[in-house]
Amino acid sequence: MSEKQKVILDPHFRRMDEIFSPRDRDRLYSLADIVWGRDEPMPLDQFMEALPDADVIICAEWRYGDVLPLAKKLRAIISVAGAFPLTLDHAYCFAHHIRVLSIAPTFARQVAEMSLGMAIAACREITIGDRAFRNHTEQYLHAGNTSTFMMYGRPAGFIGYGSIARELQKLLAPFSMPVMAYDPWLTDGFIRSQGARPVSLDELLTTAQFVFVLAAPTVENRAFLDRPHLERLQQDAVVVLMSRAHVVDFDALTDLVLAERIRLATDVLPTEPLPADHPIRHAKHAILSAHRAGSVREGLHEIGDMVTDDLEAILRGLPPQRLPTLQPELSTRYAPIVVPKPDEE
Amino acid sequence: MSEKQKVILDPHFRRMDEIFSPRDRDRLYSLADIVWGRDEPMPLDQFMEALPDADVIICAEWRYGDVLPLAKKLRAIISVAGAFPLTLDHAYCFAHHIRVLSIAPTFARQVAEMSLGMAIAACREITIGDRAFRNHTEQYLHAGNTSTFMMYGRPAGFIGYGSIARELQKLLAPFSMPVMAYDPWLTDGFIRSQGARPVSLDELLTTAQFVFVLAAPTVENRAFLDRPHLERLQQDAVVVLMSRAHVVDFDALTDLVLAERIRLATDVLPTEPLPADHPIRHAKHAILSAHRAGSVREGLHEIGDMVTDDLEAILRGLPPQRLPTLQPELSTRYAPIVVPKPDEE
Amino acid sequence: MSEKQKVILDPHFRRMDEIFSPRDRDRLYSLADIVWGRDEPMPLDQFMEALPDADVIICAEWRYGDVLPLAKKLRAIISVAGAFPLTLDHAYCFAHHIRVLSIAPTFARQVAEMSLGMAIAACREITIGDRAFRNHTEQYLHAGNTSTFMMYGRPAGFIGYGSIARELQKLLAPFSMPVMAYDPWLTDGFIRSQGARPVSLDELLTTAQFVFVLAAPTVENRAFLDRPHLERLQQDAVVVLMSRAHVVDFDALTDLVLAERIRLATDVLPTEPLPADHPIRHAKHAILSAHRAGSVREGLHEIGDMVTDDLEAILRGLPPQRLPTLQPELSTRYAPIVVPKPDEE
Amino acid sequence: MSEKQKVILDPHFRRMDEIFSPRDRDRLYSLADIVWGRDEPMPLDQFMEALPDADVIICAEWRYGDVLPLAKKLRAIISVAGAFPLTLDHAYCFAHHIRVLSIAPTFARQVAEMSLGMAIAACREITIGDRAFRNHTEQYLHAGNTSTFMMYGRPAGFIGYGSIARELQKLLAPFSMPVMAYDPWLTDGFIRSQGARPVSLDELLTTAQFVFVLAAPTVENRAFLDRPHLERLQQDAVVVLMSRAHVVDFDALTDLVLAERIRLATDVLPTEPLPADHPIRHAKHAILSAHRAGSVREGLHEIGDMVTDDLEAILRGLPPQRLPTLQPELSTRYAPIVVPKPDEE
Repeated sequence: MSEKQKVILDPHFRRMDEIFSPRDRDRLYSLADIVWGRDEPMPLDQFMEALPDADVIICAEWRYGDVLPLAKKLRAIISVAGAFPLTLDHAYCFAHHIRVLSIAPTFARQVAEMSLGMAIAACREITIGDRAFRNHTEQYLHAGNTSTFMMYGRPAGFIGYGSIARELQKLLAPFSMPVMAYDPWLTDGFIRSQGARPVSLDELLTTAQFVFVLAAPTVENRAFLDRPHLERLQQDAVVVLMSRAHVVDFDALTDLVLAERIRLATDVLPTEPLPADHPIRHAKHAILSAHRAGSVREGLHEIGDMVTDDLEAILRGLPPQRLPTLQPELSTRYAPIVVPKPDEE
Repeated sequence: MSEKQKVILDPHFRRMDEIFSPRDRDRLYSLADIVWGRDEPMPLDQFMEALPDADVIICAEWRYGDVLPLAKKLRAIISVAGAFPLTLDHAYCFAHHIRVLSIAPTFARQVAEMSLGMAIAACREITIGDRAFRNHTEQYLHAGNTSTFMMYGRPAGFIGYGSIARELQKLLAPFSMPVMAYDPWLTDGFIRSQGARPVSLDELLTTAQFVFVLAAPTVENRAFLDRPHLERLQQDAVVVLMSRAHVVDFDALTDLVLAERIRLATDVLPTEPLPADHPIRHAKHAILSAHRAGSVREGLHEIGDMVTDDLEAILRGLPPQRLPTLQPELSTRYAPIVVPKPDEE
Repeated sequence: MSEKQKVILDPHFRRMDEIFSPRDRDRLYSLADIVWGRDEPMPLDQFMEALPDADVIICAEWRYGDVLPLAKKLRAIISVAGAFPLTLDHAYCFAHHIRVLSIAPTFARQVAEMSLGMAIAACREITIGDRAFRNHTEQYLHAGNTSTFMMYGRPAGFIGYGSIARELQKLLAPFSMPVMAYDPWLTDGFIRSQGARPVSLDELLTTAQFVFVLAAPTVENRAFLDRPHLERLQQDAVVVLMSRAHVVDFDALTDLVLAERIRLATDVLPTEPLPADHPIRHAKHAILSAHRAGSVREGLHEIGDMVTDDLEAILRGLPPQRLPTLQPELSTRYAPIVVPKPDEE
Repeated sequence: MSEKQKVILDPHFRRMDEIFSPRDRDRLYSLADIVWGRDEPMPLDQFMEALPDADVIICAEWRYGDVLPLAKKLRAIISVAGAFPLTLDHAYCFAHHIRVLSIAPTFARQVAEMSLGMAIAACREITIGDRAFRNHTEQYLHAGNTSTFMMYGRPAGFIGYGSIARELQKLLAPFSMPVMAYDPWLTDGFIRSQGARPVSLDELLTTAQFVFVLAAPTVENRAFLDRPHLERLQQDAVVVLMSRAHVVDFDALTDLVLAERIRLATDVLPTEPLPADHPIRHAKHAILSAHRAGSVREGLHEIGDMVTDDLEAILRGLPPQRLPTLQPELSTRYAPIVVPKPDEE
């Protein structure tokens, strides 16, 4: 009789029912012998006891130290945090053929949807128009449209062409927008094969009407969208900043928005919470969101869905199919990011 | 030598350069002998002088009286106002094979875009989230997402399935939403042929998460969305009201929004301007727009584009192809609507 | 109590169960008081007896003579033959607001599917390759691909841009083919609005790799694709001839195919049956079909589906929505075509 | 000054200009120091000399023996043959982080196109109809359509859901066919995420009207479509056999086609060339192609395109993006296949 394989499941800072729907939780328990599987952080002694026989570990960050040599059967570590765990010994994993998986793609749909909504809100002035009613200053008809414009047909640029960009590209398709992309981690050929035009950062900034900043933070891209770059943007360009404030000179961005040179829709801020006196709070053409694009409750169930699917694949002796595996070429190039933990707010 | 056909062009309350791009204006003058073609209202005596020989009249509303019997060659009247001109003698036109055309479809794209933007803003709480920053009450991450939800996969319902709905359906396609439609002027077979599910008004109201109210005002549909109907809506249903306040009991709608039973995104208001003390102005889950969805400046050039295309068709002896012709079955069923005139604001 | 409206239903040469599914037949009888509704031709005396009270007539060709003045309530004549009935008094119909409807669009899907299948068969040499096996001359792998090519990315041209072309355009969309169209009955603006590029006949013939001939026969287009035009085609252009041999110089076409200048896939022939000794029968690069593209049995139920839908619309006092109404501008320009009648073969 | 990296390029049995367009050849030489790069097989002594310093090897099959330990810098082996090279020491590659890449996806578009063309030809009887003209037995109109049917709306099943299936799925999308897939190497969750319905083999065989057999040959699937399985197919099911005859009991298939129980469109044969007296050669409802679906000349340039793109990625220190990397879970499960070599015919 075949014995079930063993899976350590320690999702904390996430909660079990937050990420696993009842159906996925049932699948999980039928697929494997689940160890722990509770909301509280797994006590280290229990973790160490389970480690030697574990086939797969599902955790948030890697907070267990340099213990991998004790794992004799381990084939995969799946992080539910939101990025590849950087405190893990990647070299050991590569040498021992332990896959490291990230759930980053589970956020693609909700962030893409928010990006589109904020982009339309910026060009059609939905927040401005609504604010006007609350201030009794609304302007009707054409008088309320002196500076609005449409998305249809306007050039869109993606800075960072990963899973969010590719999901957003599907949402933009019916608007017939020429789509260009800049991503130094991808070849022109790949970008072209996905239906986007690969361009230089300079061409993107000077020609796109909608600039979607979706680049994951890396050790190379801190504040690479600096003042000189931002100043190249077109008048009334809409900057939709969704990845991390890490990649942009936020002061320069703020200046340009206050000067009404460009429009900003941002889900991320240079420090969170944002200081009370930050001038962007009162900029007419800013739309501000408090790191909410990737935290819709129902969206979290996509984590459980994809994790369970790939757990099934791995336990059946197949490669994972829905989540990306950490690649040796890139493993040293990700920047540590502060993973949002709702219970610390 | 073939003489050019004669076209009376009296677009007032619209302006020539507002609706005709330079390219379309050139096309216009090369297609026909254009009479008037100025922003000011055409003097009636000049109109009467040109009428007998006119092949086509392009005007806004019909303000010329009962003069059609004097038109000996007239084949089409194209209104640039936004709806079929109701002060015109339709019976005479049908009897004498004079086509009456409306530019209503030129608004489809801009209204569809605004509808989508407002719908996302409502479920993802984009205006609420932005307002919070301005009030220093923003909530980060999951704390800011306690009542948000996504569009993906949620059922959408169209009340009124005309050109706006069909354009919006294209924009919704990537969200994999089941689409249903209610339109008493259409057969189930037609609705089904367009990829939507024909449903009763009751089924739509009780099952759609997003309810797009796009019905043109008719003599039959005044306030047909009354309190009992609105009360059938699901908790947190998003009502996107884009056609006319005419079709809804706005007081009932306001009550439901204030009670946080439903969410409202509306481009139209029971009276415009809205009274300063109307309670909807301060409803948390209302997104208000001052009749701005169909008045984007660049969108007006679509009027000139379609009008010129169909003028070309008519002058070449072909049926019009882009604008709808008034149909005898429906001509008495449209309700008069106050056409927005920017210069009267 | 409201009495049912009266509909004369005389579909001969078509058969009732051939065009009406059981579901549509039930709908039909519940919508109206159906007179006749049998496969045999309706006796003229019964027709004349029913005519004065008939609201709608559904027939194949118009074989009843000049009797319309006796119809006192008639609002529509729906022909199930395949084109507008040309023996009918169109002027009388226009003057008396009797709509004349054609079921031509019901053929769009099946003809589009066949067009695509024959086009792929031509460029990938599916019939040639299969024939080779039967002759024991098949060539494997690259040796069997010395003159094949793919559809992906190649320019496609539509000659005639009606319902078949627009359906075919949907099928071609995943092949990323630039699409151009030539249709003298349409404006450039309309063609462009449908996502195709309007071009001159000359540009189409010299630049398209796949030329789909879909033009309905008119009094103007007999053999307009004459030898000089056809000689302008590119080497190995694939001509897919689907509308009528009427529009092309078939001898010139045959010569070019025999000379291996172009490839032909045709569903229509200059005379049907084709003479036994016609040289096209043995041309290597011809794919021949015996007027079968629009005669798939299951496709005929689309006739019943659309006819019943529009009958419902008309009886409810609405304009028809799925079938086109004869337009006064074009009514004298259609050429008589021999409607295929299966029971005469 | 940075020195160029070294790439061994030994494409034989393929030819340089067959797979590399002039543009890609230029890219290749600008990216790296190319060693060999000729049509003839690289002499082994030259290979051994270049091996120690080679960063990447591009070859067809692995005919160099057990020499990998001599490669000191090797990061990738890219096979242009058509499948992962099975004579290579996979374990060594995994242990030393040498990626092994296959060009299999470059065939997806041309095979998908051929699959669609043959499927339409089968249900619409395009080869049968054309053959009839050559035999003077053609039947016109409905008489020629007694056993045809349409693709629109019919259920399609993929056996094997890899790159060809996913490309074909795009081509089938406009036909509104419910799509199901059976693939034991994939999870239900992944299949569902791609818009197909995961089903058991049994459900697929009994419910699909079009069965696309696209499974790569593995050590597990030899003749798994045996007689009992094939007998479960629906009357007139269309089997489109594109991967390898390996996976099917071809005798049983032949019997069913000759008995007119099912229809067959096949690009592969149990032995190639097919024996002259094989009865499938004269089956009415068979469409035969001599392993030509993946050998269109222009399609071979997609090999060069993707190889050059991924060479660029690897040399820039990035993971490959267009071609799949051999995965340890599957590396022992592929069956050896005879790679078609055109120059051996």
